[in-house]
Amino acid sequence: MRLHFSISQRSWVATLLRGHVRRMAQSSSQCQQLPLTMEDVREAEERIKSHIHKTPVLTSSKLDSLSGHRLFFKCELFQKTGSFKIRGATNMIRKRFPPGSDLTGAAVVTHSSGNHAQALALAARQRGVSAHIVMPEGAPEMKAAAVREYGGTIIFCENTEQARVRTCEEVMERLGPSAVLVPSSNHPDIMAGQGTIATEFLAQVPDLDVIVGSVSVGGMLAGISVAAKSIRPVIKVVAAEPKNADDIARSFAAGRRIVNESPPTTVADALRMSVGDIVWPVLLTNLTGVVTVSEHEIISTNKLVWERLKLVIEPSAAVAVAAVLSPQFGEVVGSLGQLKVGVVLCGGNMNLDHLPWMTS
Amino acid sequence: MRLHFSISQRSWVATLLRGHVRRMAQSSSQCQQLPLTMEDVREAEERIKSHIHKTPVLTSSKLDSLSGHRLFFKCELFQKTGSFKIRGATNMIRKRFPPGSDLTGAAVVTHSSGNHAQALALAARQRGVSAHIVMPEGAPEMKAAAVREYGGTIIFCENTEQARVRTCEEVMERLGPSAVLVPSSNHPDIMAGQGTIATEFLAQVPDLDVIVGSVSVGGMLAGISVAAKSIRPVIKVVAAEPKNADDIARSFAAGRRIVNESPPTTVADALRMSVGDIVWPVLLTNLTGVVTVSEHEIISTNKLVWERLKLVIEPSAAVAVAAVLSPQFGEVVGSLGQLKVGVVLCGGNMNLDHLPWMTS
Repeated sequence: MRLHFSISQRSWVATLLRGHVRRMAQSSSQCQQLPLTMEDVREAEERIKSHIHKTPVLTSSKLDSLSGHRLFFKCELFQKTGSFKIRGATNMIRKRFPPGSDLTGAAVVTHSSGNHAQALALAARQRGVSAHIVMPEGAPEMKAAAVREYGGTIIFCENTEQARVRTCEEVMERLGPSAVLVPSSNHPDIMAGQGTIATEFLAQVPDLDVIVGSVSVGGMLAGISVAAKSIRPVIKVVAAEPKNADDIARSFAAGRRIVNESPPTTVADALRMSVGDIVWPVLLTNLTGVVTVSEHEIISTNKLVWERLKLVIEPSAAVAVAAVLSPQFGEVVGSLGQLKVGVVLCGGNMNLDHLPWMTS
Repeated sequence: MRLHFSISQRSWVATLLRGHVRRMAQSSSQCQQLPLTMEDVREAEERIKSHIHKTPVLTSSKLDSLSGHRLFFKCELFQKTGSFKIRGATNMIRKRFPPGSDLTGAAVVTHSSGNHAQALALAARQRGVSAHIVMPEGAPEMKAAAVREYGGTIIFCENTEQARVRTCEEVMERLGPSAVLVPSSNHPDIMAGQGTIATEFLAQVPDLDVIVGSVSVGGMLAGISVAAKSIRPVIKVVAAEPKNADDIARSFAAGRRIVNESPPTTVADALRMSVGDIVWPVLLTNLTGVVTVSEHEIISTNKLVWERLKLVIEPSAAVAVAAVLSPQFGEVVGSLGQLKVGVVLCGGNMNLDHLPWMTS
């Protein structure tokens, strides 16, 4: 007997099959301990709470009616340095340099030209530690200026992955044993810091059914997933990703970590990295699913949020909103009813002299 | 003996002299009753509170350090229809059509191509009353579309003041005796509605030293001034105005109402009208002073707020922020110390396809 599927039924079946692969992978993955626990997130919360902002949650009846759900927007664009990155950076720095520690020669090092660079510079300055940021030559002057404003020292290098790693190693060696390398995402201390988004969010809106966040390396959503599922086990955690940088969607479907083969081209410039190896088992265990969105969806949603919510979000944050507005969303969460959906607006740093929806 | 003034001393003396003229004018004005009382604002609050948003107050350490004060931003850009205008429109409509009244043929009419048009359309729809908005031919399609989205009927007319007034009269006559003309600002019921910004704001931040708001016709700041001075008599109320549309600054200096001689040219397109005759005695009595800002200050402050506060404010709202950052501000409030300053971000409706700081 031949089965007749409508397109949406086909998708459902595909989702079910992927779910089967995933559950098999999870059962093997759960034999190992995950690199992050709720205790880590709670410790991070205590460590960072007086150094970061508690960001507000906003709602929009227009976006509710477009999505068919009740949406709650966690405004990390209002966070210090304009993105959530200060949470993880502050946690890792203050864990390595706790109160009373000798700060002689204390330094942090990273390579980043994005939100992590600014966040690390400020988090270091707040702790009285020097920050050394390796950036590729040709990075936008605006981004370098922001790092300098927060007191960071910039070291330029060639624009290759190898050059960045080598330059970081050289800087670490020069600074000596009190220097700490702080990655942007793929580290338990960073994930723990980002997980405090969820502890705050669920204190503000305790009965969320779903949390949606954009993913690149994935540390933010990994941290959020551990905290959210610990506080509210029935919650679903959904990753949002550009179609053009869909390594986590492909990884999730395959049940194993797959990286982007070449640097992706997407307007969501903070989402071009591939899922991290430390992050991956956390996402595999905790994610309900992944929604991918087109460049057109990202750009039109970005403009919609500016127009309707009056919030200057960057395209990487628009990816999470676009995911909730996408027809895929209902398939992934597996419900036809109205849900309470928390959407993380992860950042608001972008060039305001040319906007993605402007053609010239 | 010739006195030597520095520029700032000169401004001080000019301020003192203007204050003298003003106090003389006030003492004669106070003999008459003002068109708005705190009771009107409290009644408005009861009438509208379940139909509008209570907007949040945000802060920014960057803007604090630039201004030298502690700033509190009242986010009316998050209000329904993207500006404070829904407060006054809702109050006037619901006062004229209270619960239980016969709504047969009930209608409201106005001429506006700005925020009032959208606000009136939605406030009318919420009350089950039809809204008829007279707009000049050639008004941006985006603005007409917004009015239609909220259920308003648009009647186009020639782009002259006379044509707008005449068309409004024709529409009123056609609609019959149940139609009510709802002006955008120069009316006690509108002022009372806008005054609820202050009752909310002072409940959120009770010890504000100053409230600053942009002025065009002036109904918003007039309403705010009555409420704020009733709740907290020591509070100072400061008007912010484009230098290119400085009728209230000139009126205040002269102690009598002076209107703009020709339509002003300013990027703050919501602030091109002149002070209203009903509004004026309220402002004259309650204002501490007026700060005027250049087009350059408006545009650079607009961009600064987008960059730093991540808020899509329109240029008319940037005028109030620019006023607080201006050297004139200290002169007007007469204090060299740090103050708690409430700044009303009045709206966030603007064309996102071309921004004021873009040259091409």
